[in-house]
Amino acid sequence: MMKTFELTCSVCDKIFPGDGLRLRCPDCGEGLDTPIITEGKIRASDKPGQRVLERYADFFPYLDLSDDPGLGEGMTPLIRDDVLAAEVGVAAVYLKNETVNPTWSFKDRGTATGIVQAKNLGYKKVGTASTGNMAVSVAAFAGRAGMKALVLVSDKIAEEKLNPIAVHGPTLVKIKGDYSKMYDTALEIGGKLGIAFINSDATMRVAGYKTMAYEICEQCDFDVPDYVIVPNSAGGQFRGIFKGFLDFYRCGLIEKLPVMVAAQASGCSPVAAAFEKGENRVSRFENPSTIAGAITNPLPPSGNGVLRILREYGGLAVTESDESMLASQKRLAERGLFVQPESALTLAVLKKLVAKGQIKAGSKVVCVLSGGGLKFTAALGMQQLKAHSCRLEEAVEFISEVF
Amino acid sequence: MMKTFELTCSVCDKIFPGDGLRLRCPDCGEGLDTPIITEGKIRASDKPGQRVLERYADFFPYLDLSDDPGLGEGMTPLIRDDVLAAEVGVAAVYLKNETVNPTWSFKDRGTATGIVQAKNLGYKKVGTASTGNMAVSVAAFAGRAGMKALVLVSDKIAEEKLNPIAVHGPTLVKIKGDYSKMYDTALEIGGKLGIAFINSDATMRVAGYKTMAYEICEQCDFDVPDYVIVPNSAGGQFRGIFKGFLDFYRCGLIEKLPVMVAAQASGCSPVAAAFEKGENRVSRFENPSTIAGAITNPLPPSGNGVLRILREYGGLAVTESDESMLASQKRLAERGLFVQPESALTLAVLKKLVAKGQIKAGSKVVCVLSGGGLKFTAALGMQQLKAHSCRLEEAVEFISEVF
Repeated sequence: MMKTFELTCSVCDKIFPGDGLRLRCPDCGEGLDTPIITEGKIRASDKPGQRVLERYADFFPYLDLSDDPGLGEGMTPLIRDDVLAAEVGVAAVYLKNETVNPTWSFKDRGTATGIVQAKNLGYKKVGTASTGNMAVSVAAFAGRAGMKALVLVSDKIAEEKLNPIAVHGPTLVKIKGDYSKMYDTALEIGGKLGIAFINSDATMRVAGYKTMAYEICEQCDFDVPDYVIVPNSAGGQFRGIFKGFLDFYRCGLIEKLPVMVAAQASGCSPVAAAFEKGENRVSRFENPSTIAGAITNPLPPSGNGVLRILREYGGLAVTESDESMLASQKRLAERGLFVQPESALTLAVLKKLVAKGQIKAGSKVVCVLSGGGLKFTAALGMQQLKAHSCRLEEAVEFISEVF
Repeated sequence: MMKTFELTCSVCDKIFPGDGLRLRCPDCGEGLDTPIITEGKIRASDKPGQRVLERYADFFPYLDLSDDPGLGEGMTPLIRDDVLAAEVGVAAVYLKNETVNPTWSFKDRGTATGIVQAKNLGYKKVGTASTGNMAVSVAAFAGRAGMKALVLVSDKIAEEKLNPIAVHGPTLVKIKGDYSKMYDTALEIGGKLGIAFINSDATMRVAGYKTMAYEICEQCDFDVPDYVIVPNSAGGQFRGIFKGFLDFYRCGLIEKLPVMVAAQASGCSPVAAAFEKGENRVSRFENPSTIAGAITNPLPPSGNGVLRILREYGGLAVTESDESMLASQKRLAERGLFVQPESALTLAVLKKLVAKGQIKAGSKVVCVLSGGGLKFTAALGMQQLKAHSCRLEEAVEFISEVF
């Protein structure tokens, strides 16, 4: 087991030894990347339910995978939807359904690798500052791994969000005060109390998201899709997926890289704003206002890292409105998958890009559906949902009229 | 494609030609089984996300699988939990995590096969009478398959349950009146309006649940577990899983059958009551009262079929209290999996059987976790969940005390 290895700053490229839980570049403060992978073999099994980290072990040479919590994360379906493709006007739409992870969001992939590294390093405690998918994921995986978990939430959190975290048994602390300072406070707490914080763009969390790209490559028979659209909040998911494609490209497993698209809500789009202005650094997005709470991050910690990838590899950053997001949520549910509004944003953005001619008709596109719809049922109140009513005795007649 | 084939009554054994959507035996009114399978080969792929019906196509010779909706159902992990095994006092506990199906419950397996058969037979419309997991599942899969869906619910349904069904876009009808008569009314509606009803123990739905057993066999390297504990409501899931093991046994793929355990809530346990009294027919359970709404079926339509399996193959029917169920829900969440109380019942029943000496220390046991905890968050209100509070400035000091 390697306790330290060469980390590369995602923005300034400085390389220095460190472990994957050290959060930021000591020089420029940006997120760090795990070592570059240039060779590896997929250890494919034909048994149902293979562990994702077992399958891609070659691509995580810096982890001792005997500490794999193994809660069944990853290995999610890539669902081709020809009806949506025809509607949108592209050759193929693939839906990467991350809502079937053990805590029903993509976060589980990064939590798993974060937990492995924390155990490798001898930590007994992990932590996170989050009110959503990540809080649940860290609490669940810590339980599985036999570690103690600390979850720091804002005291403004709704009760309905609190209980699904609490049930996993973490130490749950509601923080009164300026929650935007929580990130730094968490680092201070972690350092003083020996807690490994696995936050949104922690190096080893980001590394875990690479597996999503590995799977997409395999599921497309290594004929890489033209575009991959990712909901963008802190930027960790985006960075991880892209780096996954890059791994397989460097290893000679795929012949090209997809165009990466960072999808943001119009009401909170710091990355898209900087991208449109031709800037290389994100600025704080003032007065954010969107229903997409899971991707409301006015100053995303990996924003600059995402921008750099967009510049160097020819990606896009695109916004869409809450209305379009909700319409896409409804449409995806009609096609069988009930996802968070944030996930539906990827389909909304795809439609916009096709309408603007930026994605051509012959394209093959992956939309990443990051989290399940039951995570945030309040959004359903914004849908125009209806139900009929009738008496049992009149049911046959009534239904023959309405159905 | 075979439009009709030999169906066997699950209780009286009469064989007659029919299709898998014909609901009951014309003689005794019981549920029907699909044709016996005596040979078949697993078509294993080593690609992530293989379709479950593609893998086990040989075991569904009566279906034309070109109509497979393919929403990524099945192929769920079997998670070994050695901590729980030690706590309970058995050699191995395996958790079959059905909460990672596309609509987050086991129902999707049976909905998929039901939809295939309905499409095979030329139906354009499907229906179901359900207020829970099955309603969501049928609405979602019908959407995927491009079919119209009719969902009949009681007008007493809570709004929070209604919206996650409605979002998939079915024709949703709240029925005023005696909902217990809904089953018969649904059949009448189906016959008159050409709607294929895929209800709880419909033949082709039950057939879909077989795939869970197939996967368990593979995941245990064909060394079949000693016990398989299944939450029991209508009885369709229990029948399907058992018949799946029977298929593999008859095909020579496994050398023994597991002991099947039907788990019921103490507050609604018609099958367990009949089993204990040595009866061969279930009676209506009067005044049911349990938090386990998903398995509250006072007169389960496949109750007699389940009893027959228990008698002939040496199974068990066991009850546990709501309190034990909630305690097991909490414990499973602490081990990483947040499931419905009904699913946690399987662990509660396992503990009870070990305490009573009915399951021995050397046993290997599978608990089937049928559905995800977010389906019924009201149950969380019954857990003793707690959160601390502190001010940001005091966070380091406070957390060093409590964590």
